[in-house]
Amino acid sequence: MKKHNFSAGPSILPTEVFEKAAAAVLNLNNTGLSILEISHRSKEFVAIMEEARALVLELLNLENKGYQVLFLQGGASLEFLRVPQNLMQVGGKAAFLDTGVWANGAMKVAQDFGETVIVASSKPKNYNYIPTDYTIPTDADYFHCTSNNTIYGTQMKTFPSTKAPVVCDMSSDIFSRSMDYSKFDLIYAGAQKNMGPAGTTLIIVKEAILGKNNRTIPNILNYQQHIAKESMYNTPPVFAIYTSLLTLQWLKSKGGIAGIEKLNETKANLLYTEIDRNPYFEGVANKADRSLMNVTFTLANPEHKETFDQLWQSANISGLNGHRSVGGYRASIYNAMPIESVEVLVATMQEFEKRIIN
Amino acid sequence: MKKHNFSAGPSILPTEVFEKAAAAVLNLNNTGLSILEISHRSKEFVAIMEEARALVLELLNLENKGYQVLFLQGGASLEFLRVPQNLMQVGGKAAFLDTGVWANGAMKVAQDFGETVIVASSKPKNYNYIPTDYTIPTDADYFHCTSNNTIYGTQMKTFPSTKAPVVCDMSSDIFSRSMDYSKFDLIYAGAQKNMGPAGTTLIIVKEAILGKNNRTIPNILNYQQHIAKESMYNTPPVFAIYTSLLTLQWLKSKGGIAGIEKLNETKANLLYTEIDRNPYFEGVANKADRSLMNVTFTLANPEHKETFDQLWQSANISGLNGHRSVGGYRASIYNAMPIESVEVLVATMQEFEKRIIN
Repeated sequence: MKKHNFSAGPSILPTEVFEKAAAAVLNLNNTGLSILEISHRSKEFVAIMEEARALVLELLNLENKGYQVLFLQGGASLEFLRVPQNLMQVGGKAAFLDTGVWANGAMKVAQDFGETVIVASSKPKNYNYIPTDYTIPTDADYFHCTSNNTIYGTQMKTFPSTKAPVVCDMSSDIFSRSMDYSKFDLIYAGAQKNMGPAGTTLIIVKEAILGKNNRTIPNILNYQQHIAKESMYNTPPVFAIYTSLLTLQWLKSKGGIAGIEKLNETKANLLYTEIDRNPYFEGVANKADRSLMNVTFTLANPEHKETFDQLWQSANISGLNGHRSVGGYRASIYNAMPIESVEVLVATMQEFEKRIIN
Repeated sequence: MKKHNFSAGPSILPTEVFEKAAAAVLNLNNTGLSILEISHRSKEFVAIMEEARALVLELLNLENKGYQVLFLQGGASLEFLRVPQNLMQVGGKAAFLDTGVWANGAMKVAQDFGETVIVASSKPKNYNYIPTDYTIPTDADYFHCTSNNTIYGTQMKTFPSTKAPVVCDMSSDIFSRSMDYSKFDLIYAGAQKNMGPAGTTLIIVKEAILGKNNRTIPNILNYQQHIAKESMYNTPPVFAIYTSLLTLQWLKSKGGIAGIEKLNETKANLLYTEIDRNPYFEGVANKADRSLMNVTFTLANPEHKETFDQLWQSANISGLNGHRSVGGYRASIYNAMPIESVEVLVATMQEFEKRIIN
């Protein structure tokens, strides 16, 4: 029996993506070859790569605006390194909005390359809100932010206007909401939350911002090299890219981002409404900054933990434990999460309320 | 109908690996979850990672000898960068045996870190042999070599003894032959030739050689950091590692490396014997240095190309074209290649001979 998987990442993908990916492991589109054994230089895979790159721009409405799309390896953690390597001047500086351990992690790696300025931080409140009142230095080489903070369940609803290139780690909410994505100069996202399996990182970069710093950049870390080789500088992670394409195709069939955004809002409303109504739960994140992707909550009375844990586990729910630095619970309800699973969780929370009362 | 896939990489894996991997994409070991959606922190995946790491040491007979095993992302090309970052002293030097474009590529990346010395090169003969007469500087921080050169079809049969740590790129022949692997201090290999799908890199490193240079190493490039986090410094490429484990399990069931080595020798002998016997083909690599993994050959008369190409394509063979820098043909006959497919290729070469004669 299929589980209701609320895992924060790697996380649920659409059922039809699982089915198509499994079929391709046996025989890709009737080629007589597995997706795992085809050459990345074969016409079949070149077509997959090109469709995936084009579909990213189409879904984000970024076609013909000077952006390039890459599918690389290494996770967001390797982009923490590639970004300063490619964008920070020698003797330069970069500005960071500190909204959690990942935002902070990106900043720490940049420290080896130049001055780093934290424009604002919500660390004193264990990152339970998104700071809004801050100024970005006009001479920053770039401004870096994290659009959604999985651990705390916060999400940026607005983004600053600034002269500096805006770099955004969208690992956990890419493709989830309508925005003007052309406000960003560089977006990166590990696939394993809203796009595909672990093992590939999506990078969307405005080509005009590259090649302007005065560093020696090793080819494997150089975005311009990867662009010149059409995201095949070295053997790409074929299966992870193929499965990401399947998810992007599914997203398009659901009406693209505008279509999925409505569903995401419905799912999140359902769950937040229950958290606010049910006296035995408390939300973690500041209400104005609540994430549509990761819903964090705790028990009003920690002594009821065993009862609640038993209830959701027997409802065939998995992956609900909160991150160790926050505790409590975290329901990750990414694009692929069906509303039925959210309904099962809400029903479980209501059942829990009855048990406590009686 | 299944093809006879002689692709150089990504390349064929055992049929039972394809089948088990496809099943796990739908439901991993009856967990009710896909291998693509399980958390890398789940007990299921932690067990997979630990079994894979342990099985690598067991198969290479490297248990309890001070080695650590990592499954990272980025391909061998990222290891070209990690190796000098971790091993070369500031103001230090490293020595390289130049046996092909990949060996040369590893050297070029190291140039940004210090002095690089080419101890010998077969470049003037388009890398069709392995140099043997060379001296490694006694003060080198490490010696780097490439055990098997896919493009040219050459393979190192012996390795030098030296005081410097020996680093070897074994991407295309790891797990294919019996050797004393404890001669090496650091082995790395992209999975996509002899171990699994593209998307993970195996690193086997003697822990004692690490932490001795005086550089600031970004965490994501620091082997010690990855070791401390048991290969989970960041989200690992779950599916690629799982599929690699399936291949390692298959290898163990075939008698381990000693078992597969016999089969590899039989397959390679079959093909090289035909190349030497058949007057219409010529081997590319120096006979003493012929690879058991990648068999390169050309037509004695290039005008017969259309006839031969038509023949092998209609025999349901794929991936036989040589690398553009060598031309001709390349049959990659990695561990998972069944002898039946090699027999089909040999029969096709014999059929070609008949066509030409008549």
